[in-house]
Amino acid sequence: MITIAIDAMGGDHAPQVPIQAVNQAIDKYPQVQFKVYGDQTKITPLIRTDQRIEVIHCDGIIDNEDDPVRAVRTKKESSMVKAARAVKDGEADVLLSAGSTGALLTAGLLIVGRIPGIDRPGLMPVIPTISSEHPHLILMDAGANADTKPINIQQFAVMANVYARRVLNIERPRVGLINNGTEASKGSQLSKEAYTLLSELDSIHFVGNIEAKNLLSGEIDIAVTDGFTGNAILKTLEGTVKSLVSLLKSTFKSGNLSTKIGAFLIKNPLKNTLENLDDSKQGGAVLLGVKAPVIKAHGSADEEAYINAIRQSIHVIESQAVVQITNYFSD
Amino acid sequence: MITIAIDAMGGDHAPQVPIQAVNQAIDKYPQVQFKVYGDQTKITPLIRTDQRIEVIHCDGIIDNEDDPVRAVRTKKESSMVKAARAVKDGEADVLLSAGSTGALLTAGLLIVGRIPGIDRPGLMPVIPTISSEHPHLILMDAGANADTKPINIQQFAVMANVYARRVLNIERPRVGLINNGTEASKGSQLSKEAYTLLSELDSIHFVGNIEAKNLLSGEIDIAVTDGFTGNAILKTLEGTVKSLVSLLKSTFKSGNLSTKIGAFLIKNPLKNTLENLDDSKQGGAVLLGVKAPVIKAHGSADEEAYINAIRQSIHVIESQAVVQITNYFSD
Repeated sequence: MITIAIDAMGGDHAPQVPIQAVNQAIDKYPQVQFKVYGDQTKITPLIRTDQRIEVIHCDGIIDNEDDPVRAVRTKKESSMVKAARAVKDGEADVLLSAGSTGALLTAGLLIVGRIPGIDRPGLMPVIPTISSEHPHLILMDAGANADTKPINIQQFAVMANVYARRVLNIERPRVGLINNGTEASKGSQLSKEAYTLLSELDSIHFVGNIEAKNLLSGEIDIAVTDGFTGNAILKTLEGTVKSLVSLLKSTFKSGNLSTKIGAFLIKNPLKNTLENLDDSKQGGAVLLGVKAPVIKAHGSADEEAYINAIRQSIHVIESQAVVQITNYFSD
Repeated sequence: MITIAIDAMGGDHAPQVPIQAVNQAIDKYPQVQFKVYGDQTKITPLIRTDQRIEVIHCDGIIDNEDDPVRAVRTKKESSMVKAARAVKDGEADVLLSAGSTGALLTAGLLIVGRIPGIDRPGLMPVIPTISSEHPHLILMDAGANADTKPINIQQFAVMANVYARRVLNIERPRVGLINNGTEASKGSQLSKEAYTLLSELDSIHFVGNIEAKNLLSGEIDIAVTDGFTGNAILKTLEGTVKSLVSLLKSTFKSGNLSTKIGAFLIKNPLKNTLENLDDSKQGGAVLLGVKAPVIKAHGSADEEAYINAIRQSIHVIESQAVVQITNYFSD
């Protein structure tokens, strides 16, 4: 039985959405039980009664306004901290939250704890590409670290490689280093040294540098970079898609009659296409490098996105990716 | 009279496009004369005969395969190097090229030369936003430097501020520092120190940190960052727009009859909207911090884009932005 610890108070639609997702998932996934952390008075009226669902009462919420380190250290009765503690103590296998990213990363580091041999865990979203043959791009680190050393990037590659193979079933993931040019000699001091370390690694299929303009084409499976750049890339991507969609909407809205008819006719296929770009279909971003998987669902995750994150949590545990990573670094 | 030195051999459509652009611009801009550098046998049959157009024969081209520093040092008779030399020698006021970005940056640094007091010139594209009120975003540095110090970022802000005020006529440009969060305490060692230096600068209107997801909203006019991150952001932006457009096309193409009719009806307004996102409308990216403006047109620039870059070259000279920058740093 897999035990998922859910921070039911995190995210824009808490606790309704996490609870609805649990209510759905309990039938869908018979191999799972849930520990649901949050305000019992709010949760109990909403949640199904099932012997595989346990509600653990918590006081207080960590939100985006809180300083992550201080909040994790002081709000010991909050839903996020208590859920992290359960994972740490072996009472749950995986932590899932749609709460503050900073606080969740901190809880992962300070409570769940680093895997020995890994200097810095990294945050790893799975981004949809426009390639039907290679629909997934793993990005790591997407922002767990503001300052990164070459060895960290090498370790990101190892961890992402295990995830791609075991969870996404990509046989021989192509790993690229994000750089400002494709030649081996290109880049910052950091990226040049990371290039050398990645080249020396027999356990991965390193294909060299990749420019950020080619990330969505499907030509690589894993893009590694420092957390500052990765964060900027992920956010640029999100912002550009959002801006473009809002631009399309206003074009259709302000158009003449034939534009409006046209917009009506393409509405559904367009919606389907844009949904393919929605990375919440892939679940959440995984903090890899800590002793148990910590999964960050989008703050705005709806029920479907949350269920995707639950499914992903199950896959990560069943794949034993974290065990594999731990073994690799214990050698 | 403004003299523009044009590297007629740079870019995907050279020498046709640069020459067609010159042929058009000569009537449009009576205050301008052109020095056109390139293969005379190819240029002369295409170019108009006009006393304000001078063709200077060159041997050899620097292309994207060349190592920038070596090429600029050894290909002394190439169109790019000779055009840069003319600017250096005061025979032309501005250098315009659609050739290799790396080589052009190198030619700017090694031949045109840094303005005294500026440690690192930066590459500055003007990116269209989705805001009709604030349609321009200046990004600096978009990749002239692989490694950047806090003082460089402060200088980028000063230079971009002069450009925004004098060339784009923005009265009090809002300057943001790209960071992985908006709080002042956020970020890498580099971005924290840059934040402090930007805060200390009275000559700019520093509005604090900005996340890359909000760059296109129009909430700031100038985004400063290190060249590695800026490069990744610019390329992510380009790649995402391109991917989305190709995704839209294939959605419409593979759709049923009503989708196809819809696509036909929205084709023109959609095209107009997407053209608004085309940054070649703004001209090229400017290398600021060298003694004369060096402007990089898109490698794929068509005639219209090239004329936009010529118009921009004129604006930059007429605005005396480089004189202003030089004065600032000479104090």
